[in-house]
Amino acid sequence: MGQEQQQKAKGLIAVFTGNGKGKTTASLGLAFRALGHDHRVCIIQFIKGSWKYGELESAKKFAPLLDFHVMGRGFTWKSDDLEKDKKVALDAWQFARKVIEENQYSMVILDELTYLPHYKMIDEQEILAVLKSKPEELHVVITGRYASDELIELADLVTEMTEIKHPYRSGIKAQKGFEF
Amino acid sequence: MGQEQQQKAKGLIAVFTGNGKGKTTASLGLAFRALGHDHRVCIIQFIKGSWKYGELESAKKFAPLLDFHVMGRGFTWKSDDLEKDKKVALDAWQFARKVIEENQYSMVILDELTYLPHYKMIDEQEILAVLKSKPEELHVVITGRYASDELIELADLVTEMTEIKHPYRSGIKAQKGFEF
Repeated sequence: MGQEQQQKAKGLIAVFTGNGKGKTTASLGLAFRALGHDHRVCIIQFIKGSWKYGELESAKKFAPLLDFHVMGRGFTWKSDDLEKDKKVALDAWQFARKVIEENQYSMVILDELTYLPHYKMIDEQEILAVLKSKPEELHVVITGRYASDELIELADLVTEMTEIKHPYRSGIKAQKGFEF
Repeated sequence: MGQEQQQKAKGLIAVFTGNGKGKTTASLGLAFRALGHDHRVCIIQFIKGSWKYGELESAKKFAPLLDFHVMGRGFTWKSDDLEKDKKVALDAWQFARKVIEENQYSMVILDELTYLPHYKMIDEQEILAVLKSKPEELHVVITGRYASDELIELADLVTEMTEIKHPYRSGIKAQKGFEF
């Protein structure tokens, strides 16, 4: 037991995917847990707007342990300027790659990253290569729909969030303090 | 739009169920969001130990907005004193009921509540009755496996977390700052 506990910590690759609510909030909960250990956490948001006012305000309480970067701009399926979108996506990914490689955090959350390869904004092989050679103790958490089979294969922990019921479908509008 | 925004807020009943990781962490993320609005949140933990050191430390940053109550004691399937367990479960539920009815919070999280009716520790009909008559603006978040059909029917938002991959199954031990 003692010997086991002496082992170097292993950083996990976790993926929260599926169409249900709770992917970003679950990553947020992991951040909250890591921060409680005074571990440094970096959150990179690839789709602008996925993090809401509430969590952004809460995040401030954890400065300087928690860094938060909004990289995207609704740059996926609604765009009318695909080349510009690809540039934004690539810049965002290069930033994330640098953060991972520089190894200054205990946990890096790549929120909604999966949409980028899914919509052919960036090459998934490059993401997989960076994840495979990530610093050993670093935890990387990836959220978003459409996680690929290869990403799932590479990850240590994968949870699929499936929507069983969604309030919007019952005509309930988004509620402050719950959904934003 | 303006008129719509004047509508009284509607408190949602959200359920995170399924066998995958992320149920408690997703509820934690919702708490984090609500706290960012300076909303009051009460977390009641029905299974002792489901919340770990990391989040308990982080939670302290949000006092006095966040109250946290550990009610259970591994009181379900491993017990050798069923009557005592039932008593503990019933006391915990009565406490939660009081918290809901007194309406002093914006959000009440009933972490791992589902195990109690599943293991016949308390009558689910009583839980459903309390939820049906909860204060209108109060959000209630319930986590745990085995959410019943009736609870799902009553809820506004239900996400099923399904385990696709779990690190323990690959022989990776629990990692500080990630799983506790």
